[in-house]
Amino acid sequence: MIRAAVVGGSGYTGGELLRILVVHPQVEITTVTSREYAGKPVSLVHPNLKGFLNMNFSQFSLDKIGDKADVVFLGLPHGVSLNYVPKLLEMGLQVVDLSADFRLKNPELYKFWYGIEHPYPDLLDKAVYGLPELHEEELKGAKLIASPGCNATATILALAPVVHWNMASNPRFVSDVKVSSSEGGAKPSEGSHHPERQNAIRPYEAEGHRHAAEAEQELSRLGKREVKVSIVPHAISSVRGALASSHAWLDQTLDDLDIWKKIAEFYKGKRFIRIIRGGIHPYPDPKYVVGSNFADVGFANEKRVLRLTMFSAIDNLMKGAAGQAVQSFNISRGFKEDEGLRTPPLRPA
Amino acid sequence: MIRAAVVGGSGYTGGELLRILVVHPQVEITTVTSREYAGKPVSLVHPNLKGFLNMNFSQFSLDKIGDKADVVFLGLPHGVSLNYVPKLLEMGLQVVDLSADFRLKNPELYKFWYGIEHPYPDLLDKAVYGLPELHEEELKGAKLIASPGCNATATILALAPVVHWNMASNPRFVSDVKVSSSEGGAKPSEGSHHPERQNAIRPYEAEGHRHAAEAEQELSRLGKREVKVSIVPHAISSVRGALASSHAWLDQTLDDLDIWKKIAEFYKGKRFIRIIRGGIHPYPDPKYVVGSNFADVGFANEKRVLRLTMFSAIDNLMKGAAGQAVQSFNISRGFKEDEGLRTPPLRPA
Amino acid sequence: MIRAAVVGGSGYTGGELLRILVVHPQVEITTVTSREYAGKPVSLVHPNLKGFLNMNFSQFSLDKIGDKADVVFLGLPHGVSLNYVPKLLEMGLQVVDLSADFRLKNPELYKFWYGIEHPYPDLLDKAVYGLPELHEEELKGAKLIASPGCNATATILALAPVVHWNMASNPRFVSDVKVSSSEGGAKPSEGSHHPERQNAIRPYEAEGHRHAAEAEQELSRLGKREVKVSIVPHAISSVRGALASSHAWLDQTLDDLDIWKKIAEFYKGKRFIRIIRGGIHPYPDPKYVVGSNFADVGFANEKRVLRLTMFSAIDNLMKGAAGQAVQSFNISRGFKEDEGLRTPPLRPA
Amino acid sequence: MIRAAVVGGSGYTGGELLRILVVHPQVEITTVTSREYAGKPVSLVHPNLKGFLNMNFSQFSLDKIGDKADVVFLGLPHGVSLNYVPKLLEMGLQVVDLSADFRLKNPELYKFWYGIEHPYPDLLDKAVYGLPELHEEELKGAKLIASPGCNATATILALAPVVHWNMASNPRFVSDVKVSSSEGGAKPSEGSHHPERQNAIRPYEAEGHRHAAEAEQELSRLGKREVKVSIVPHAISSVRGALASSHAWLDQTLDDLDIWKKIAEFYKGKRFIRIIRGGIHPYPDPKYVVGSNFADVGFANEKRVLRLTMFSAIDNLMKGAAGQAVQSFNISRGFKEDEGLRTPPLRPA
Repeated sequence: MIRAAVVGGSGYTGGELLRILVVHPQVEITTVTSREYAGKPVSLVHPNLKGFLNMNFSQFSLDKIGDKADVVFLGLPHGVSLNYVPKLLEMGLQVVDLSADFRLKNPELYKFWYGIEHPYPDLLDKAVYGLPELHEEELKGAKLIASPGCNATATILALAPVVHWNMASNPRFVSDVKVSSSEGGAKPSEGSHHPERQNAIRPYEAEGHRHAAEAEQELSRLGKREVKVSIVPHAISSVRGALASSHAWLDQTLDDLDIWKKIAEFYKGKRFIRIIRGGIHPYPDPKYVVGSNFADVGFANEKRVLRLTMFSAIDNLMKGAAGQAVQSFNISRGFKEDEGLRTPPLRPA
Repeated sequence: MIRAAVVGGSGYTGGELLRILVVHPQVEITTVTSREYAGKPVSLVHPNLKGFLNMNFSQFSLDKIGDKADVVFLGLPHGVSLNYVPKLLEMGLQVVDLSADFRLKNPELYKFWYGIEHPYPDLLDKAVYGLPELHEEELKGAKLIASPGCNATATILALAPVVHWNMASNPRFVSDVKVSSSEGGAKPSEGSHHPERQNAIRPYEAEGHRHAAEAEQELSRLGKREVKVSIVPHAISSVRGALASSHAWLDQTLDDLDIWKKIAEFYKGKRFIRIIRGGIHPYPDPKYVVGSNFADVGFANEKRVLRLTMFSAIDNLMKGAAGQAVQSFNISRGFKEDEGLRTPPLRPA
Repeated sequence: MIRAAVVGGSGYTGGELLRILVVHPQVEITTVTSREYAGKPVSLVHPNLKGFLNMNFSQFSLDKIGDKADVVFLGLPHGVSLNYVPKLLEMGLQVVDLSADFRLKNPELYKFWYGIEHPYPDLLDKAVYGLPELHEEELKGAKLIASPGCNATATILALAPVVHWNMASNPRFVSDVKVSSSEGGAKPSEGSHHPERQNAIRPYEAEGHRHAAEAEQELSRLGKREVKVSIVPHAISSVRGALASSHAWLDQTLDDLDIWKKIAEFYKGKRFIRIIRGGIHPYPDPKYVVGSNFADVGFANEKRVLRLTMFSAIDNLMKGAAGQAVQSFNISRGFKEDEGLRTPPLRPA
Repeated sequence: MIRAAVVGGSGYTGGELLRILVVHPQVEITTVTSREYAGKPVSLVHPNLKGFLNMNFSQFSLDKIGDKADVVFLGLPHGVSLNYVPKLLEMGLQVVDLSADFRLKNPELYKFWYGIEHPYPDLLDKAVYGLPELHEEELKGAKLIASPGCNATATILALAPVVHWNMASNPRFVSDVKVSSSEGGAKPSEGSHHPERQNAIRPYEAEGHRHAAEAEQELSRLGKREVKVSIVPHAISSVRGALASSHAWLDQTLDDLDIWKKIAEFYKGKRFIRIIRGGIHPYPDPKYVVGSNFADVGFANEKRVLRLTMFSAIDNLMKGAAGQAVQSFNISRGFKEDEGLRTPPLRPA
């Protein structure tokens, strides 16, 4: 049994990690930390876990966490994680960091997008970007996993086949993302107040969304040339689920079947990718992945104007956060990729 | 491995049974029938199951179903199930019937509430009402399980301790139930049309809801005197979840702690009952059981006017339908009660 | 033109008052105060009013408000309003108070329910409870109007005919109310955070809701004997609208048509009451009053168990708050009751 | 008083027309037709109008409609309207057609997009495209008004300033539209069933949405060169409201203030356009126009990648259908443009 600590366990990503790990056959949760709720029962904050995890939140202690854990899942804000990671690694712990702190390889970009001089640029190269569909080999045995952001995950999984197969001669994409309210985290704000958020169709961070940095890094690497991605997120009414509609202009007409084949070949053997095409539900819809780690990928090819849209639908807390972190962890440890992640999506949800 | 057939597998209850059984370690799904979709892939109708169940719907055949099944889950309308059950039992199959056809012991009541003369009144006594919290012993080895209705389940679980301990001298209850849209099934109607249903707070069947018959039967049996329950359902905006607020007038002041203890003692050892009291979330809310088989039970005791309200929160497709059917099936077969039902509820959902 | 000041204009009730008054032909809005937003444009907080009200919030000044106003609408918390009302009246201003401070005639009850010794008990008798369906005569010329609470309004309008006609021999009622999120006001909290509130079916203040005090006062007065009402509110997913399902036990069977006639006679000539019975939508549903000042009233009569439920559906910000305040104001000034309130409800909404 | 007939009055657009016209001071509704509900009360289908319109639906009769009407609002499907329009015009009636039948000037395009040879191509030139912000002059005295589609309205209003000022050297746009469920009309379907539609983020008609034809026609005319628009609609959870996010690639950096000024100048004096920029709500959100005829217009200018997104938020039943039809009608008759359309948007809604 791997002993796991979840640091920052009172938020939604932390809660989702607990929900997965508490029934993961290879993992024992030994520590759940929370600055705000230390000393209080986990099920007070996460009432869904009542009966599953009879444990109190504790204060995070960098000195003691090694006594009880083999792996540490860090659910902390960016700019905070980076202070703890080097020491945790030194202590021989495996770190799965869900913040943005180790996702970007280029420290200049980290500074540009997050406004912080990265204090440990050397570690950036050692971190593995935890998107298993692109980095499965590097994840095996990885000691530091930088788990991707949700809008980046949706965007990258939508566009990876296009970039890999060089389907758009001008690799410049607008990823129009529709996101559910749980993506904003557990902290109330003016914008998350129910009467304001419900029924909203509200663009936000529309002039420079940070996840573009990760998406450009990964897609440029994959496409072996500079790819530009502009992410435009929109807050909508649902609680879980995100859809990326990533739009591209083409220079020539592509055949539908050919597009399908290229996507299928690119994602061949990928356990958590489902290609959606035709039928009653011809395009991906996050509604049908809720509660699971799937990314449903599909496309719309409007030949009349040479516009190709790639769609990718995920549960933002699962494939967009905690589920993907566990998937990467499973691979790093040599477990089955879907260990703890086998429950089918809910429907209807 | 038990071979299972799901008859009427294209509806929501059928889909939920498939979602559970497809990962149930003791069960192999061999047949899924649907009159409307025979010959088509199950995942066409249930896109969440894509990648889990590569099987087509078939036509139901009473003659052939025995070749491939040990247990038949019947997800058919009332008045239809009863035509098949006797033959299925004769063929040696176990039947878990999710319709209302074998829930009532008294054929007069069946006729009164459902308008049909019951053709097999002898079978009514042999059927076990599949509410495991009240009928665990009888379920062991049961050949015919009549799985309860969702509003009845919520109401019975709310009121059982009150009736058992005789807490209300006049056992007459109004169970004001708030139900989500999936409770109405998968067939579109004027009332289920999204623009009409969303934001509705709409009473329905408010002058005689059929589930009252089951609730009165079970609570009268438990309380050893005639109990009257009036169920008033209200359609609201959510997709999953039902809350019963079952109101009682008392003749004397009851102590909060005493009520809590009586509920706790009544449900002692019951795997799927969680008692909710105090904390940030002081009363049950179906939001925190979504995707699971739990029934969260709690109460409000307004001493000023001697009014006691018992609350019970369930996922209507799980504890209110498919989950409870599998729970009963597990008990009937000597499996662990929660086999296939161990995933914690989603949060937030 | 009557010059109106809206004090506490940044909340939802304040915003709704502005939305009505800005197109009210007899009213000119001269002042809108807000402690938090003084100096900032009203449309910053209320983007719906952009283009309607080019005015900044100001600080409330008890000394100066009389220079620019004939009537003051007070949208302040209880316990705050009562400090200003006597002075405003002395200055000759009319006051429409939307807080609870002048609703109860008995200062003991005010202390019991709100925990404050009322400093101006003499004024309680002078205040008119602003429910026009019960107090139309007293409202004419009223200088101090205490506008009712939303759950009280729904409950009183549901039960008034029952109490007036003495239909229930034992006048003891449970009013199970389903309320939308805007009822909680504009201030974010843990419970109002979208991921927590959406899809909730959450009882709250279930052991003593304050609006019971008003409801009991009004219904006891009307029925000429002591009436007990227990209000059990439930937070649900919609943004606007409240439904009261007020349950009564009867001692004898009542005839449906007779009930209908009694309701119709009681509410004869009342502009904002619509009696709902039969048709596609047989019971009241707040969905069909959204944006209007209507209260739709109906009933369910389950003769089998002698249970009568009275339903009343309102838009909590209109008939439950700002709309009703303007209705009372109109009557007080001799205007048409529906001045500024003639737009039909939205559908679908 | 203008006598108005609403043909096809049982749908959502018809209902919304009634809701507006019933309080329009210059209009008397004399006829409301419905094939399905002829002989039944209008308020049976539109419960919101109970108390406003005590009238029954009638059967549409081309011969008799002229006896009681000066203007006919046609809320019929495309392909049906065109059969009635010539005769109605001959009879001297004014026609406001809400279908697509007279929107396109080029009969070839009508055939391409709607699959029907247009039987009255001569009338296409006489019809005025009822988008008052672009065609105010032509609307004065117009006898045949072709009222625009909702997604076209949102897209055109978003992009018109860009095209007018030639801000994008390559006039090729993806308009990613998020639409509420009322846009699909009043008829239930699999896709509109509440459990399926709620929480969906579902692309549809993503490979050729018909409204692109209108949008391209109007924007090409305005820009005096060929403009290509690809509309990608997405069904989301709300009931009312649509947001167009119309994406463009630029060839050079544009200045934010300059963009704002160009939008402001283009829409100068337009009563129902509000420009949204900065503040708590920096981008348009249909939430804040619900119930009104406004189109809120704004933009996001990501200079890093030279991507400009124009946003336009409307209430799909108002500015996207019935409200705009009345606005055009008002102009055609010389009434104030906002007659009957002065109620501010609801908030929160």
